[in-house]
Amino acid sequence: MKIESFFSNNIKEALKNNPPGEWMPKLPEECIRLSSGYPDPSLVPSQKIKEAVSKLLDEEQDLPLHYLGSPRIKKLHQQIQKRLAERKMNVQDEELLITSGACQAIDLIARVLIDESSLVVVEAPTYMEALEIFQNYTKQIINIPIDENGLQTNVLEEILKDRRRKNLSLPRILYTIPTAQNPTGTTLEWNRRKHLVKLAEEFNFLIVEDDAYGELSFEDDPQSLKAIDSSGRVLHVGSLSKVVAPGMRIGWIAGNREFISAFTWFKKDLDHPFAQATMASYLEGIAFEERLKMLKELYHKKCDTLIKALRDHFPESVTWYVPSGGYFVWVRISGIDTLELLEHSLGKGVSFIPGKYFFLNQQDGTEFLRLSFCYEGEAEIIEGIKRLGQIIMEQLKFTSSLLK
Amino acid sequence: MKIESFFSNNIKEALKNNPPGEWMPKLPEECIRLSSGYPDPSLVPSQKIKEAVSKLLDEEQDLPLHYLGSPRIKKLHQQIQKRLAERKMNVQDEELLITSGACQAIDLIARVLIDESSLVVVEAPTYMEALEIFQNYTKQIINIPIDENGLQTNVLEEILKDRRRKNLSLPRILYTIPTAQNPTGTTLEWNRRKHLVKLAEEFNFLIVEDDAYGELSFEDDPQSLKAIDSSGRVLHVGSLSKVVAPGMRIGWIAGNREFISAFTWFKKDLDHPFAQATMASYLEGIAFEERLKMLKELYHKKCDTLIKALRDHFPESVTWYVPSGGYFVWVRISGIDTLELLEHSLGKGVSFIPGKYFFLNQQDGTEFLRLSFCYEGEAEIIEGIKRLGQIIMEQLKFTSSLLK
Repeated sequence: MKIESFFSNNIKEALKNNPPGEWMPKLPEECIRLSSGYPDPSLVPSQKIKEAVSKLLDEEQDLPLHYLGSPRIKKLHQQIQKRLAERKMNVQDEELLITSGACQAIDLIARVLIDESSLVVVEAPTYMEALEIFQNYTKQIINIPIDENGLQTNVLEEILKDRRRKNLSLPRILYTIPTAQNPTGTTLEWNRRKHLVKLAEEFNFLIVEDDAYGELSFEDDPQSLKAIDSSGRVLHVGSLSKVVAPGMRIGWIAGNREFISAFTWFKKDLDHPFAQATMASYLEGIAFEERLKMLKELYHKKCDTLIKALRDHFPESVTWYVPSGGYFVWVRISGIDTLELLEHSLGKGVSFIPGKYFFLNQQDGTEFLRLSFCYEGEAEIIEGIKRLGQIIMEQLKFTSSLLK
Repeated sequence: MKIESFFSNNIKEALKNNPPGEWMPKLPEECIRLSSGYPDPSLVPSQKIKEAVSKLLDEEQDLPLHYLGSPRIKKLHQQIQKRLAERKMNVQDEELLITSGACQAIDLIARVLIDESSLVVVEAPTYMEALEIFQNYTKQIINIPIDENGLQTNVLEEILKDRRRKNLSLPRILYTIPTAQNPTGTTLEWNRRKHLVKLAEEFNFLIVEDDAYGELSFEDDPQSLKAIDSSGRVLHVGSLSKVVAPGMRIGWIAGNREFISAFTWFKKDLDHPFAQATMASYLEGIAFEERLKMLKELYHKKCDTLIKALRDHFPESVTWYVPSGGYFVWVRISGIDTLELLEHSLGKGVSFIPGKYFFLNQQDGTEFLRLSFCYEGEAEIIEGIKRLGQIIMEQLKFTSSLLK
């Protein structure tokens, strides 16, 4: 039996890509995890979720365990709509699809909107999982650099104009993480937000706004692209993974109802009544704003700790963006291949994600790495950065001795 | 903005199909649900799942609420592998993918193996959700009739030989529900099972074995196709929806590791740690064999009740298969359009699924309907069949008066 002969032509190209999850380091048993984009264990409400399940099943018995029938499925939609409305996004019932996390949301969008001839624009660097997903659908991807104020919309505009002049295809979608970007921690500034939405109208593309960290700004949350879009071009992707718990797999797409209807068409895992009703029951019992305030304070504090540790323990030549929110710090170490660095680092019990995985052209990311301040405690963060700093200094010394 | 201009060419054909879930009747508030393929509410272990969550979160705290890290995810794999091994299916780690229910399993299989030129074989009638899924990928579908002993493999063989003679394309996959089929309740007999697996080898196709009801035979469970397949052509799709609870969304694909790897590639909802770990914790605490025994007894009893009610309250001209297991009875009423019948029936507070939705060529199913004995209690089943019988008799009288 020739296995390959059974594969659909539509996926053969995708199977030539690097396998999914290749970016994930194999952690040694004892490891300070500066790689993981996991919420802080102390902020994962396991006790409250236990109570939420008790309440749910006491009140509803078998209902949330069937395909349909739990009133709390509807309630979760309302809770999400209410929260979006508070953030100036008015989303009707038919404009909201609850997904199994933001990744499934991005995959459904790609499944419905992208074929092998569609042009996709991503940020450089960008979320590695999103890159994996888009590369499953098309090779027509271009990237636009990020600076400390987010996506460089003027560079985007030049490229779009140039493509139009040359009669090259224009993008179908642009994927951006405007707030507390993964991996850079940067936030798209206000003028660029307006510029980006204007460009979408002018060049007729859709914006996929990945807002997973949209409520985790250390200052006031900026207005989402969806909130300033009047033409229905923004597909807003949200998630409760970073503010409640990723293991619940609750995300969503909010956007034009015709797109939402098409996404539903291909969402064949169906609704997840137990997880969704549990989440609704959990959200009923908490003050969400207060929770967000607590999250922001803790993550901000841990972020400051990591940045201070970088200043204390990393060589002066190393640079980084001070994050405006989220989970990550993006670091550049000139003269170091961070994939090689990772091997040494894991040997000393510290993990991070090498920068190459966040770039469409992986060689652009050789000198970069992503550090997480979300998961580990402050003492571990300091210890991890200390060890990593030592390895970097040794590496740099070694490299410069070779050059002599 | 022209919405359609953003849709991928790959999905435009699919969007012309009937919308998903069209088969689902809009139930009146008071309704005897002979339409729902839901487990009996008394058999949905809501109390035990509550305990399973308590135990899980007390023991593991935040672990099952992250992306990875709960030891019970691995454990669920082992529990499923153990159960499959007891049913003579030896499945290694790399040969098993846990999915969000059987529907997602079928969708992943179609996503990876089917493009618009691939030929798919289904049963007539077959599971309407599977039909919806395959029609999202290809229009090249043929169907093979079912009789009281399941798929007519001799008809299949003739068609395959004929296609080979005429140089027509041969199937890439055949989708079957060999045990307690949905909707017919029939079970593929032993000789046909061997014949089918032989045909797959001879004509080089894969078998997708939907085994959702494979442990719900009223007699001894027949050996699965996967258990008698020696060439790796069977993709075994299983589910805990019918034997535990559909709201947990736990199913799987067991098969050749190269296929499994490709399915994983496109499963972008990721693992569902909370649901999977909860299921593992639940399964730890119960005797699964005893549970199955109890399920079979109760469903058999309810099935008998429905069949007796059919004999008591339906006109003599109506025929049905006596189910060998599962959830459903498949009924034929000559001279009645069951879609019209449904309207009257809902008016009297009884639901069922019209037969047309289970056929590739919907007109083949006009006179059929599917009745469920799984969800309602015995008194409701009898009352529902009584009401339905009255409506049918009135309809038949009306029709014959028109003919006079």
